[in-house]
Amino acid sequence: MTASVANPVYPVVWRGDHVELIDQTRLPQQFSVVEIRRSEDMATAIKTMIVRGAPAIGVAAAYGMYLGSCEVTTDNRDGFLSELAGVGDTLKATRPTAVNLFWAVDRMLKVARQTLGPISQIQDQLLTTAQEIGADDVRTCKAIGDHGLSVLPKDPEKLCLLTHCNAGALATAGYGTALGVVRSAWTAGRLARVYADETRPRLQGAKLTTWECVQEEIPVTLISDGMAAHCMQQNLIDVVVVGADRIAANGDAANKIGTYSVALCAKAHNLPFYVAAPLSTIDFDLADGGGIPIEERHPSEIYQIGTTDICPKGVEFYNPAFDVTPAELITGIITEHGVFAPGDIREKLSHHRSA
Amino acid sequence: MTASVANPVYPVVWRGDHVELIDQTRLPQQFSVVEIRRSEDMATAIKTMIVRGAPAIGVAAAYGMYLGSCEVTTDNRDGFLSELAGVGDTLKATRPTAVNLFWAVDRMLKVARQTLGPISQIQDQLLTTAQEIGADDVRTCKAIGDHGLSVLPKDPEKLCLLTHCNAGALATAGYGTALGVVRSAWTAGRLARVYADETRPRLQGAKLTTWECVQEEIPVTLISDGMAAHCMQQNLIDVVVVGADRIAANGDAANKIGTYSVALCAKAHNLPFYVAAPLSTIDFDLADGGGIPIEERHPSEIYQIGTTDICPKGVEFYNPAFDVTPAELITGIITEHGVFAPGDIREKLSHHRSA
Repeated sequence: MTASVANPVYPVVWRGDHVELIDQTRLPQQFSVVEIRRSEDMATAIKTMIVRGAPAIGVAAAYGMYLGSCEVTTDNRDGFLSELAGVGDTLKATRPTAVNLFWAVDRMLKVARQTLGPISQIQDQLLTTAQEIGADDVRTCKAIGDHGLSVLPKDPEKLCLLTHCNAGALATAGYGTALGVVRSAWTAGRLARVYADETRPRLQGAKLTTWECVQEEIPVTLISDGMAAHCMQQNLIDVVVVGADRIAANGDAANKIGTYSVALCAKAHNLPFYVAAPLSTIDFDLADGGGIPIEERHPSEIYQIGTTDICPKGVEFYNPAFDVTPAELITGIITEHGVFAPGDIREKLSHHRSA
Repeated sequence: MTASVANPVYPVVWRGDHVELIDQTRLPQQFSVVEIRRSEDMATAIKTMIVRGAPAIGVAAAYGMYLGSCEVTTDNRDGFLSELAGVGDTLKATRPTAVNLFWAVDRMLKVARQTLGPISQIQDQLLTTAQEIGADDVRTCKAIGDHGLSVLPKDPEKLCLLTHCNAGALATAGYGTALGVVRSAWTAGRLARVYADETRPRLQGAKLTTWECVQEEIPVTLISDGMAAHCMQQNLIDVVVVGADRIAANGDAANKIGTYSVALCAKAHNLPFYVAAPLSTIDFDLADGGGIPIEERHPSEIYQIGTTDICPKGVEFYNPAFDVTPAELITGIITEHGVFAPGDIREKLSHHRSA
């Protein structure tokens, strides 16, 4: 059986003369799109997290550069390149730690410098490049999804898949990484249901993963994070697939806080635990996960949910944004180049790394 | 060093002519007490969860019976006993599954029947009995706390203790079970800090456990449930102590959902994992945890936090209220009679069971 995809999710879409962004700050209560026609508005959209997720930000920034190139008032090539660099600086200043953002802006600047001919020809080339960056990311995600599908357990025919946080279309140009595997499995008729950890404290599982599943009519059951082990014990889960923020050369994987707990529970129940992420997530310069710094975020994420304070004054907080799952708990790392045992990525993937 | 206890928490207190209940529905935002002077109001307080937790409900119901005995209008002994049975029926109807509630009401009725002399003498005896039930429960909890203290790891001197949900003074007549161990450890100078899982979906850890710690000036760090494994990996936790709702004869323990996940993570980090519970929690007729029914609660507990809906329409939910931790993950069961390996409770404790 092949299921159809009802409403594919693309967070950043070019509409002929403007960019349409899904306003992720309003999900899941409200689906609305924001039209972006000026580079300055794109910078604001990135800063205010209307668009979020490293690959999605990269695509948005690339379109921001194109929009900026159309705002330049000079016909002089050097003046144009100089003004465009200023647009790039504004975009780069929005989310200072987003690697894909810097990469996309720099790629656009390089294309501008390398394109000969009149300004209009540079602008055309910038639009083409922004579209390519988006299309490349969707292709990468689809390859991840299809490679993931090929390693899913063969039994039962229709699987129940647990995921944590949102490694979805909303965080990429479309299709997603862990949710890319979900989409490929659903389309191939191999998926019975997604179990989504709500993923406290920021609830990306409850807010975004369930929303993506509902859009595409994929059955989804929302659980609290502490229920995952019990669901495994009750044989409700066949496989776990999560994303990653950064993978060390030995296969240790940093991902949203709570992932490590899920990995330990999967191991205890002999369930396969896959990490789905593009090659660009692997940091071959990092020997192991011990070198990954743990970002600590504001305690209000813990003590405040919506407008509700959940604990009294006088309490202290610890709010690490992610944790590190050791390689030995990971069944395989699903990339656009195939699926690899964590211990094999250095040997089999490092030749792909860009200079 | 011996720490002092700042503000001991007693959820049910006799004040000479009325009962004072901590209004647990308003915690942690507001500390307020409710004065109960009539049996009918006590029934309402139990039904609306102003007082909750099986042992605390038992004590409250016993005082409700005494208050009811003072409302009886007849001087005739049989008429008195008959009216008192009616009060008991009203109290029993509040929370139909609370074992301690039935036990306390029946004990009060038995005392009334067995007390000779005038009505006033029966009333005096009922008040004495209600006070005894409360005092017995506090003694049981203190014994649990002190036995727990004796088995805590000797190193480091000041421990960081992780707990889940609220097995605290608020759920008992005072002192608590898992939090009884916390209190004994704190008083003995053996406790550095409590780590409290927030315990989704109902957030009893965030709302009640942190509140109890703050009252007694015990340092407490609130974490999201998915952070416990990471905290263990970072060597922030020395020991785990939780309560139990029901323990099977083989030592399998049912407790608040999420406990099993914590137990698996503790095992993976070689951390001692203790269950603190009174003997009355052990069901010697139940061979193992497989026989414990898993109550499923309303999905609104998952999708609504305070006034905030956290997910879109079209999502399904699974909301088991507790899970079962297998005996092999439990280092010891801390009771008022001592601490026992789960496999030993049948042999060493079943002679204590009441007929």
